[in-house]
Amino acid sequence: MIVGVIGGGQLARMMIPPAISLGIELRVLSETPGSAAIQATTMVGDYTDAETVLEFASGVDVVTFDHEHVPQDVLARLVASGVAVHPNPAALAVAQDKLLMRSKLAELGMPLPDWASVESSAELADFLADHGGVAVVKTPRGGYDGKGVRVVRAADEADDWFAAGGPLLVEELVEFRRELAQLVARRPSGEVTVWPVAESVQRDGVCVEVVAPAPNSTGAIADVAADIAMTVAERLNVTGVLAVELFETSDQRILINELAMRPHNTGHWTIDGSRTSQFEQHLRAVLDLPLGATGTHRDWSVMVNVLGTPLVGRYPIAMTDQPTVKFHDYGKSARPGRKVGHVTAIGDQLDEVVYQARAAAEFFGA
Amino acid sequence: MIVGVIGGGQLARMMIPPAISLGIELRVLSETPGSAAIQATTMVGDYTDAETVLEFASGVDVVTFDHEHVPQDVLARLVASGVAVHPNPAALAVAQDKLLMRSKLAELGMPLPDWASVESSAELADFLADHGGVAVVKTPRGGYDGKGVRVVRAADEADDWFAAGGPLLVEELVEFRRELAQLVARRPSGEVTVWPVAESVQRDGVCVEVVAPAPNSTGAIADVAADIAMTVAERLNVTGVLAVELFETSDQRILINELAMRPHNTGHWTIDGSRTSQFEQHLRAVLDLPLGATGTHRDWSVMVNVLGTPLVGRYPIAMTDQPTVKFHDYGKSARPGRKVGHVTAIGDQLDEVVYQARAAAEFFGA
Repeated sequence: MIVGVIGGGQLARMMIPPAISLGIELRVLSETPGSAAIQATTMVGDYTDAETVLEFASGVDVVTFDHEHVPQDVLARLVASGVAVHPNPAALAVAQDKLLMRSKLAELGMPLPDWASVESSAELADFLADHGGVAVVKTPRGGYDGKGVRVVRAADEADDWFAAGGPLLVEELVEFRRELAQLVARRPSGEVTVWPVAESVQRDGVCVEVVAPAPNSTGAIADVAADIAMTVAERLNVTGVLAVELFETSDQRILINELAMRPHNTGHWTIDGSRTSQFEQHLRAVLDLPLGATGTHRDWSVMVNVLGTPLVGRYPIAMTDQPTVKFHDYGKSARPGRKVGHVTAIGDQLDEVVYQARAAAEFFGA
Repeated sequence: MIVGVIGGGQLARMMIPPAISLGIELRVLSETPGSAAIQATTMVGDYTDAETVLEFASGVDVVTFDHEHVPQDVLARLVASGVAVHPNPAALAVAQDKLLMRSKLAELGMPLPDWASVESSAELADFLADHGGVAVVKTPRGGYDGKGVRVVRAADEADDWFAAGGPLLVEELVEFRRELAQLVARRPSGEVTVWPVAESVQRDGVCVEVVAPAPNSTGAIADVAADIAMTVAERLNVTGVLAVELFETSDQRILINELAMRPHNTGHWTIDGSRTSQFEQHLRAVLDLPLGATGTHRDWSVMVNVLGTPLVGRYPIAMTDQPTVKFHDYGKSARPGRKVGHVTAIGDQLDEVVYQARAAAEFFGA
């Protein structure tokens, strides 16, 4: 069994351990020679070039992804060449374009913030007028970690993006109690599994901490979140891991914020906290193997991202202080604000587990 | 941090996932191009050739091992070249020669079966006469998985080995209730951790199943086993993981059977069952990093070896039947009796956990 992964970031990197455990051959197409997934990189090249991607995919059983940026024309060439692609291009298109995502989810009757496609500052002004003078504007493509997202209070605050052409997505600014993330995995033959819904804490648009399960999420909230994610996966025919980022509003509604059709930062806790990690499950799912159990080892798992400077080299004090914490370094060079690793603590007392994970991350300046 | 591993078997292979998690660069010297540790193999060559080993070790922070077969003269060259070697050659010598092992352990006052070094069938006859006419004869070097071990009832039954030269180890045939395995890890600066003592079930000299902790081992047995392993690690200055195979005799004594100075089959359960796996701990230990916590995720872990035919290709039915079981394939080709993988189940009800692990392994003909 050979899985080809397009993209050599930390998500591809974290697929390597379960691939080795299961005896699956992993091949990665990286953009640069020194990528985070260097250990499994079999080709370095441009994922927007169809010839490169076709050459890479030759001989693999399935192609999957570290990111959602592979152009649709390249994906179409892959499918035409007879290679299995999971998630499939039609599903990926929904993750690639926030306007398409909103319209598809609206068609499915999914709970969404108020939204509109706006083509001009005049249309944006109308939306602002209808929503108390504040809104969130998003570029339909290319945004991540807070990029391509802007809170606006005047219609001219998106003029530069309008000038760049094309419609923008505008949404109500949701008053949320907190952000949740529901991960689900689905295999082509239909089997679906969910992990417990998690709470994700963002700072400046970047996920900094995840608590799983989300505190006080038993019952209705957990059921609604799981139901939304399973419905989206089934109706959009998503295969592999799907992350559904959700808002829990001040008035107790659950609204969909974003979708990611791949393993996701909000699921890193599953490596150490769940019977089956999101990375193992993604490999099983895209190979159409039976999915693993998603129960947890302990009552609580807390993951804290490490930004900026790699963990390696600063282990002695952190490991001495927190012997139960698990450390994950992505093999990346230092850069301010860059996600370079994460730590995870698990246990049965939430306050203890939160303390352990944060204390460990502190040693890395997180 | 760069760790060089001599030997490309499944033990080196299973060091790759924690190396990737921790951001440690792993380099493996494999005997053959298609080894089990192919993903981390940076050189293919002969580990008995000093030039090959020195070239391999150039630039690594520490050299460690997948097996104990590197000749002492090669190890001496490595040390002379200034490379850190863990475990160190003097400790490894004890694991390489069963006669030296017995004499060193006897010096430390460790509990051993009655033993002697015999040079001839006449000496063997004397030992047999003193031990009820039955004994176990072992070649001092090169034995594993039951090879180089023979139960004899007549003095001429080891003549072929005497003819090959050198003394043999002869031991009383211990009447044991069961076999135990105590794993310990020790770093150069002295820190030591132990996992719970495990019970190991052997068939034809090959480990087939491990239950951790060993049932009914709370209290005295666990304490004695841990104490023996820690003492051996400290007094022989062993670094990295040390496995001490033990007999629990019919009359409630604990005797040392064998030592292995590396991660060991009886510790594979720690990958899925413990906070810190033996492979992660070995990497931490040889790098003199603080050791991880060795608590378990659940009350029981059961590992069953898969012999003969690789798991890959036969996953669908096994994964469907046992969604909580974790599968490990070593990337080896099929060969009767060869260890090609293992499965591990964890849980709080021993009978269920044993059933799950055995049921999963059954699908692979184990």
